[in-house]
Amino acid sequence: MYLAKVYITLKPTVNDPQGLTIKGALHNLGFSTVTGVRAGKYMEIRIDENDPKKAHSQVQEMCHKLLANPVIENYRFELKEIPA
Amino acid sequence: MYLAKVYITLKPTVNDPQGLTIKGALHNLGFSTVTGVRAGKYMEIRIDENDPKKAHSQVQEMCHKLLANPVIENYRFELKEIPA
Repeated sequence: MYLAKVYITLKPTVNDPQGLTIKGALHNLGFSTVTGVRAGKYMEIRIDENDPKKAHSQVQEMCHKLLANPVIENYRFELKEIPA
Repeated sequence: MYLAKVYITLKPTVNDPQGLTIKGALHNLGFSTVTGVRAGKYMEIRIDENDPKKAHSQVQEMCHKLLANPVIENYRFELKEIPA
């Protein structure tokens, strides 16, 4: 059994209105030291698979096919073995 | 200058329809080994602050006041010094 922690971020050149909105809200709350916010997604996926290589290639395929949009987003993930 | 990487997840007891939808979509794509998906948020925040303790307490306050809903969400973050 593996737990994949998947981090999806917009590519640095892509405009991020959600991040800009959060930055504006933080400024309004008085956090004037904030110079930039980029918003992304985070997912925890449990995989019933014993082979770490297979788990790795499966998560990579999931990211590419569904979880991230490779045109505008980058992804990275960590795999950790967990008790079933 | 500090970069805060903020991870926001739903508390384990809270229902996660987004995660269930992603799990269903992964099953439809043939990833039958997926036993669970929890969806969360990820943010990268740049802070113009030289004192790591101040940066830490600011990020903690931001999470508590705006970024996370402490009733249903947990948050954690990492701080890293970056060149200005």
